[in-house]
Amino acid sequence: MKLLVKKIDFETGNTKSIVLNIKNAQELGQKAGERVILKNPETRAFENKFWSAIIQIDYLGSIVKPGEIGIFLNILREKRDLKNGMIISVKPADPPDSFKFIQKKIKGNKLTSEEINSIVSDAVSGSLSRIDLAAFITGVSINGMDNEEMTALTLSETRSGEIFYFGMEVYDKHSTGGVPGNKVSLIIVPIIAAAGLTIPKSSTRAITSPSGTADSMEVLAPVSFTPKKLKEIVSTHNACIIWGGALETAPADNILIEIERPLHMDPVGLMIPSILTKKLSLGVKKLVLDIPVGQGTKFPTPDNGKQFAYLFKEIAANVGIEAECALTLAHQPIGHAVGPALEAREALILLKDFSAGPNSLIEKSTDLAGILLEMGGKAQKGEGQQLAKQILKSGKAYGKMKQIIEAQGGNPNIIPEDIKVGPFMKEYFAKKDGYIVEVNNSLINQIAKASGCPTSKSSGVEIIKKQGAKIKEGDIVLRLYSHSESKLRRAEKIYNATGGPIRLGGMVIERI
Amino acid sequence: MKLLVKKIDFETGNTKSIVLNIKNAQELGQKAGERVILKNPETRAFENKFWSAIIQIDYLGSIVKPGEIGIFLNILREKRDLKNGMIISVKPADPPDSFKFIQKKIKGNKLTSEEINSIVSDAVSGSLSRIDLAAFITGVSINGMDNEEMTALTLSETRSGEIFYFGMEVYDKHSTGGVPGNKVSLIIVPIIAAAGLTIPKSSTRAITSPSGTADSMEVLAPVSFTPKKLKEIVSTHNACIIWGGALETAPADNILIEIERPLHMDPVGLMIPSILTKKLSLGVKKLVLDIPVGQGTKFPTPDNGKQFAYLFKEIAANVGIEAECALTLAHQPIGHAVGPALEAREALILLKDFSAGPNSLIEKSTDLAGILLEMGGKAQKGEGQQLAKQILKSGKAYGKMKQIIEAQGGNPNIIPEDIKVGPFMKEYFAKKDGYIVEVNNSLINQIAKASGCPTSKSSGVEIIKKQGAKIKEGDIVLRLYSHSESKLRRAEKIYNATGGPIRLGGMVIERI
Repeated sequence: MKLLVKKIDFETGNTKSIVLNIKNAQELGQKAGERVILKNPETRAFENKFWSAIIQIDYLGSIVKPGEIGIFLNILREKRDLKNGMIISVKPADPPDSFKFIQKKIKGNKLTSEEINSIVSDAVSGSLSRIDLAAFITGVSINGMDNEEMTALTLSETRSGEIFYFGMEVYDKHSTGGVPGNKVSLIIVPIIAAAGLTIPKSSTRAITSPSGTADSMEVLAPVSFTPKKLKEIVSTHNACIIWGGALETAPADNILIEIERPLHMDPVGLMIPSILTKKLSLGVKKLVLDIPVGQGTKFPTPDNGKQFAYLFKEIAANVGIEAECALTLAHQPIGHAVGPALEAREALILLKDFSAGPNSLIEKSTDLAGILLEMGGKAQKGEGQQLAKQILKSGKAYGKMKQIIEAQGGNPNIIPEDIKVGPFMKEYFAKKDGYIVEVNNSLINQIAKASGCPTSKSSGVEIIKKQGAKIKEGDIVLRLYSHSESKLRRAEKIYNATGGPIRLGGMVIERI
Repeated sequence: MKLLVKKIDFETGNTKSIVLNIKNAQELGQKAGERVILKNPETRAFENKFWSAIIQIDYLGSIVKPGEIGIFLNILREKRDLKNGMIISVKPADPPDSFKFIQKKIKGNKLTSEEINSIVSDAVSGSLSRIDLAAFITGVSINGMDNEEMTALTLSETRSGEIFYFGMEVYDKHSTGGVPGNKVSLIIVPIIAAAGLTIPKSSTRAITSPSGTADSMEVLAPVSFTPKKLKEIVSTHNACIIWGGALETAPADNILIEIERPLHMDPVGLMIPSILTKKLSLGVKKLVLDIPVGQGTKFPTPDNGKQFAYLFKEIAANVGIEAECALTLAHQPIGHAVGPALEAREALILLKDFSAGPNSLIEKSTDLAGILLEMGGKAQKGEGQQLAKQILKSGKAYGKMKQIIEAQGGNPNIIPEDIKVGPFMKEYFAKKDGYIVEVNNSLINQIAKASGCPTSKSSGVEIIKKQGAKIKEGDIVLRLYSHSESKLRRAEKIYNATGGPIRLGGMVIERI
């Protein structure tokens, strides 16, 4: 069938789709979500490739009339030999092979590496629709993936994008998340780098928390770099703390995450490849994995976390990464600060002055850093944390952080007082004497996000006293910050409606 | 957040979605696929309802700039108090409750009827996205639904649309499909109606076959009617053969089918409710279900078909429908004709002249009609088929078909010669002596569709000789028709490439 290309003033995202009038679709015998192959009548292909696209249907003919084929703006930009007003030939196409492989996983069968490569490749090229990928993700959520499949998926996703080489021994740290205020990377990276190990830390922006490492670091220095600039920074300073999204690594992983997020799905079968692919793309060889366990994390019990850890280590080893895992406490935030600027400030204060604490941040950061130092041969087994504390106390970690900040285009002489928080602020005080028996992470997340995190860097929450602290009536327990008055009010509403995230009590926790 | 409504010259289909610029989405803390709630600053709602919509993101700002919110054409048409250029308030919204219920099914848990109602309701209102529905369908494909869930889904889908009442005793026939040329409804309905039973037959257009009942009937008379006209026809003639898509019954079913089709999924947990809801919507009380079994059908073995039949009968009984099931042969087409006009012609010939046959059409039609006659008390158990044959032989069925054709606006005096086929035609002849050992349904479907079925009514395939027939070299075996020369060539290509659907052989079928 020959159809006239009609430009559509809209963008289609990653999926390769076109729009047909219902009459033409019926004539072709194809339905919405099925496929056509488009050919340039002169060259027989577009940009030298046969091009199949997923059909959307205009039932009313208000956008695409019979005889026309609707092509989205971004597709016209991408395929320069496809022009508004030209006549092209259109015929029905079968779904790609990867479609059958998705069905195979849904039927509960194991996929070969070739089949996994096919799915990854077609996800990246846009030949699989969002519906296809949603079905795939759901299939993996229910039927799982075994070790061979996860290994194949990791390698496949890694090859879908740019891969960096930073040397023979490259170190990294990752967290499976779920605990607010987890700013430990801002302490760990300078420690490891100061010890002479290469640690090109790339992070995501906040997923469910009020601030991801990239959000917090961005308070101190830019975090988006081209591959060329990144290589410069790392080769000069053997470290960085950047936002991974600015690189072109593992697009396949990003595409899957985009569908997983609104579905609230993060199946282990895709999570492990997702973590490892990001590391593999940056040439990481040795990794410490922080696994927060308990309510609000991905692993409600330590046993859950342990099972995951064994699995993760095995797949990591399969793809050439040596991984050590640490189950960590997650019952309350790390440190006192939650929110990009507050967290960056707390990290900077500690780097400059060990005695300023806070303890939870010192203990967790140096414990995880210590594991890496042992893996890197800088300390004997069991002595890594001690060395990490030394490096931190000595000011060497702070010196390294200044170098990293400067290399990334920030002001190396930034002091904590320079970091803007608020300006709107509200303090909350204890209404009675007692002990803090619970700090509710979930409420902290809600309140911090309501105040504007992570987009508004100066918003957030400071938990003045934490679990176990003895409180007197009138003591300050929490500070709420926001860049805007309305957002402050919004956060206050949640605080008032719920009674806030700090629960005071005596020796009896609850009466039923 | 306040945003300026910007009209987008595009239609969004059923799902309620809007477009945000990436910056505004980030500020709201929401991602693609997540939701916002829109409020009219004056009335606080649109058309008196709070309205939540699913977010699409414009990353480049080419369609929707910061400060704008993109609203699709069809939404602007639907919500008349939402206008291009007005300022509206936008805030983040949680997914609807039905979203959690979908996750529940994915986790392998049973859904309550309230939860199923919630999913159906939100699917119809567009609050669940295509991704959400794809996840749901995949979850049901893998985890299944039990009898209570299927019953609840049937009732829920039925209540999502118009429900007709045609009297206390209403009969119907349905087929699970998979065998080409299955024109039996064109014989069954007139027989049942001639016996004085009410049979308001509604059908879909072709799904995988070259012609659905609605496509074939449309050759003889119009098949799309308003509810008012439909009630008139059925109350006057106690029968009809119409296209169900023109009624507003069970929109929920249509919405699910639209996602199932491109995924090639038809899980039993959704299939049974889908069939029953269409019947329930037309007030059907007694149903005969034709279950073709064997290669190419939904039930590869008779045992598969039998299991399905037991399950179907039970759910049907739960919703007040008495169902009898018949496993039927599907190794080759029913009759000789495949394609709308060819099938309508073959049916008309038989209705006018019992001796014209063909046997397979007579036997299958009267067997299924006989079951209904027994259920309707018109014949003793085991004598239904005999009565059906009598009614057909006597010409009473033909008389009734003329009434139905006239009531639906067709020419009651139409004769087989009036029915246009082709005009382009090609005949195929046997290249050697032998017996027909196989008629390949899949190839017949492919060839018939390539010739233009079902959109082009005059296209199709005539299988002159069927399985078991003794053939001499030079005998005609198949006729290919098309409305266009190019489509005829296209069909011929497939025939030639595959050797055609008719396989000749001796007593040895294959040597390996």
